[in-house]
Amino acid sequence: MNGADSLTHTLVAGGVKTCFTNPGTSEMHFVSALDRTTGMRCVLCLFEGVATGAADGFARMTGTPAATLLHLGPGLANGLANLHNANRAQSPIVNIVGDHAITHRKHDAPLASDIEGAARTVSAWVRTSQSASAIAQDTADAILAARTPPGGVATLMLPADVAWSKGTAPVTVPPPPQRATVPQEAIREAAALLRKGEAPVLVLYGPALRTRGLAAAGRIAMATGCGLIGEMSNARLERGAGRVDIDRVPYVVEQAVAKLKPYKTLILCGAKAPVAFFAYPDKPGELWQPGARIHTLAKRDEDIVQALEALADELGAKKEAPVAEASRPAPPSGAITLESIGQAIGALLPENAIVVDESITSGRNLFAFTRGALPHDWLQNRGGSIGYGPPVAVGAAVACPDRKVIALEGDGSAMYTLQALWTQAREGLDVVTVIFANRSYRILLGEMSNMNLGNPGPKALDMLELRRPDLDWVKMAAGMGVPGSRVTTIDEFVRDFGRALRARGPYLIEMVF
Amino acid sequence: MNGADSLTHTLVAGGVKTCFTNPGTSEMHFVSALDRTTGMRCVLCLFEGVATGAADGFARMTGTPAATLLHLGPGLANGLANLHNANRAQSPIVNIVGDHAITHRKHDAPLASDIEGAARTVSAWVRTSQSASAIAQDTADAILAARTPPGGVATLMLPADVAWSKGTAPVTVPPPPQRATVPQEAIREAAALLRKGEAPVLVLYGPALRTRGLAAAGRIAMATGCGLIGEMSNARLERGAGRVDIDRVPYVVEQAVAKLKPYKTLILCGAKAPVAFFAYPDKPGELWQPGARIHTLAKRDEDIVQALEALADELGAKKEAPVAEASRPAPPSGAITLESIGQAIGALLPENAIVVDESITSGRNLFAFTRGALPHDWLQNRGGSIGYGPPVAVGAAVACPDRKVIALEGDGSAMYTLQALWTQAREGLDVVTVIFANRSYRILLGEMSNMNLGNPGPKALDMLELRRPDLDWVKMAAGMGVPGSRVTTIDEFVRDFGRALRARGPYLIEMVF
Repeated sequence: MNGADSLTHTLVAGGVKTCFTNPGTSEMHFVSALDRTTGMRCVLCLFEGVATGAADGFARMTGTPAATLLHLGPGLANGLANLHNANRAQSPIVNIVGDHAITHRKHDAPLASDIEGAARTVSAWVRTSQSASAIAQDTADAILAARTPPGGVATLMLPADVAWSKGTAPVTVPPPPQRATVPQEAIREAAALLRKGEAPVLVLYGPALRTRGLAAAGRIAMATGCGLIGEMSNARLERGAGRVDIDRVPYVVEQAVAKLKPYKTLILCGAKAPVAFFAYPDKPGELWQPGARIHTLAKRDEDIVQALEALADELGAKKEAPVAEASRPAPPSGAITLESIGQAIGALLPENAIVVDESITSGRNLFAFTRGALPHDWLQNRGGSIGYGPPVAVGAAVACPDRKVIALEGDGSAMYTLQALWTQAREGLDVVTVIFANRSYRILLGEMSNMNLGNPGPKALDMLELRRPDLDWVKMAAGMGVPGSRVTTIDEFVRDFGRALRARGPYLIEMVF
Repeated sequence: MNGADSLTHTLVAGGVKTCFTNPGTSEMHFVSALDRTTGMRCVLCLFEGVATGAADGFARMTGTPAATLLHLGPGLANGLANLHNANRAQSPIVNIVGDHAITHRKHDAPLASDIEGAARTVSAWVRTSQSASAIAQDTADAILAARTPPGGVATLMLPADVAWSKGTAPVTVPPPPQRATVPQEAIREAAALLRKGEAPVLVLYGPALRTRGLAAAGRIAMATGCGLIGEMSNARLERGAGRVDIDRVPYVVEQAVAKLKPYKTLILCGAKAPVAFFAYPDKPGELWQPGARIHTLAKRDEDIVQALEALADELGAKKEAPVAEASRPAPPSGAITLESIGQAIGALLPENAIVVDESITSGRNLFAFTRGALPHDWLQNRGGSIGYGPPVAVGAAVACPDRKVIALEGDGSAMYTLQALWTQAREGLDVVTVIFANRSYRILLGEMSNMNLGNPGPKALDMLELRRPDLDWVKMAAGMGVPGSRVTTIDEFVRDFGRALRARGPYLIEMVF
């Protein structure tokens, strides 16, 4: 048993049984150990950003970490943007980065770099294993760190000679610490504020957005008349018919300020007080009303759901929460508009679907039309680095082979990590990708105007439009083994989307409008 | 004039007139300033690794920096791997990263991250501009830092409010410092070692690999009988008929050791003493003979060419150096083999071609068959992070519109940055891309054996082969607007490669073998 075996056996014994890989020479002993380790599924990705995003999607849907296998500093670099998103989503990931042999460091070979320095920018925990006798414990510590509430990226560097030297037996990983119980005082204070009734709203985060947490929030809302709102972007929101329906803080500053205007008391349930995604000259960064009172019911790493349930009981709320009724729009017909897109997806969304939403401007109407759809999960980009969607769809589909994954993608966004389509084809993943092909970074055209920069001139337009030439997503997908079709009316979309949902396996629809 | 205008005007006045961009909201004022700045060419890239690699290619061919425009920490992250390669190539780049407004930092918005921390891992110089009154000077300092010998990546963070606040007039950029003259003592000692004649070899780097440096090295070799060798990977090597021909240190450790075995005296001309690219159990990291004497003629940032010329004069070498004679293989016929690939490229390589070599295993015979080809430049990956080729080809083609760029790509490598094809199409760049589609990370199959790991089992094979499904490069290229064809015999390759070389504009050939 060499160090790489100690690593892989500790991973499997610690419940980490999926590895998203993009190997290189310095990881050959790791690859070889994975090869002979029973119980570990390896999923090859042709770009590291696919591997790290897939690990994020896997973590969101299972609550447990997958591992990655990245090739030295540059491999980590390519995976960094989606690790940023994952760490902001508090997704547990055991992020394993191969490194040169410790004995090789003095040579400053071409691929050498400050791996820890880069890793620290996206990790909750970072360590370089120093010997094959330490690697099993290092691995156990990484798993524990990734799973410690609220969860995050644990990056473990594996020098090649640690992998190939004589290792030890695997180490047992203790269960992660429980989320800390919220102090009674915070609950009582929240109850007092809610009873006082100065226009309160619960701002919900993470675990509060799953069925049980939402039910408790719904009971509180019914008992007190308070508002319920989620953060702008959420790692996983359970919604649809039979679940407590909430809205989110909008992206556009004016809309967000208007949405929060009625509220004078913010009760934070794991969430941060809402701030603008970007800064603009002469627009506020804090989105709540000046002077509003802010109370923290639960911190991000505390037991938010338990706190919401205790708060509901403290308020004497009824046991039943009001939930969204089943209601679906009729399938639309005619032109493709933001409204008809929403109608079409609302009409067809299948039960238990996992929606990976990177639709940017094209998806702004989706939420309203899917409130009463069959129960489903809605995943968003927590870190804002685009290109999160296709890889997260890979990970969600690996995690939940019996559920349909629907990736809603802006064309600009999907280009960053299009290599994910190949992994979807190789693994036969049940992912339907919809590309909203508006041939532009449409959001930036809006932001030019939000910044009062007037109409873009030709050079600026060239930087904001994806035209000349148009991308052909059906060809690119076919080149990676994913079948697809192009639609130019909403009727064609309803037809092809419906067909793809009834079939199994990856499919791509390019919607041109 | 706002801060962004101060930046763009200082860039143009400082000779930085090309910007490879991938903008986001926080860079809208920068985009707007570029829009109204005369004399700045903007090239949109659909992934940041394309922008940074293109800046590398541009720098290699012009010796002067292009700018980049990246979107916050995650945009930098996506560009990091090719910045690593660029910084290892000592390519001057003014790497501009937008950031949240300084006033917005306290909000820890989703895209916030430690940008400087990530930038330091790949940069020779890092600064965050603190105000619109400082940005012009910051920009001038960045240009100067990028151009200071030996050259490197200067990363300048541009907070959004620095861009939109009132700026100042542009700042004049002083000329970069000259390379320091090599001390006479180092030259005299080198001369003494060469006269002593204990099996000396000149190890050449960077500027020594251009025609003038090579001529001086050739004179020295003729006068003393010493060997000449380049590092394993070189930023830009001028070669072909009429130039002094040198070989490089091979990648495979045993071959490298055998190549350096005859030499007992290494004279480093800007180069490092050759080390193994990777570590292997029981193989040496230092490739030279134990006990060999190592003398530094010139350091990397010194005037290496002047030192070589002084050394040649000191040795009384003749003025004329022996150069490669024109000789080209006949176009081959039949099956595709490593040999016939070399023959075909040697037969057809046009004058003044810029070869961007990321052929990995498929290209190991190329050098031998192109020694006597028409004069051309050969560019290699200095940092070892794969996916450098398609973007560097973009930058080289932007820099040298009258020269043919030939990108030789492994299929695995090209997948990391395939988005570069779109920019080639949009800009009408004269790049012929050859994909060596062996459907595997072929080099890693060899490395498994170099590590004595035996035959890979099915799980390892799944991580080393790109099959199931095969990639279709012709379709992917067409999806990005680049025409192409697939060849399965060397005759077809000779036909299609020849046709593509005679035409103008981007073309892709997928060679399946």
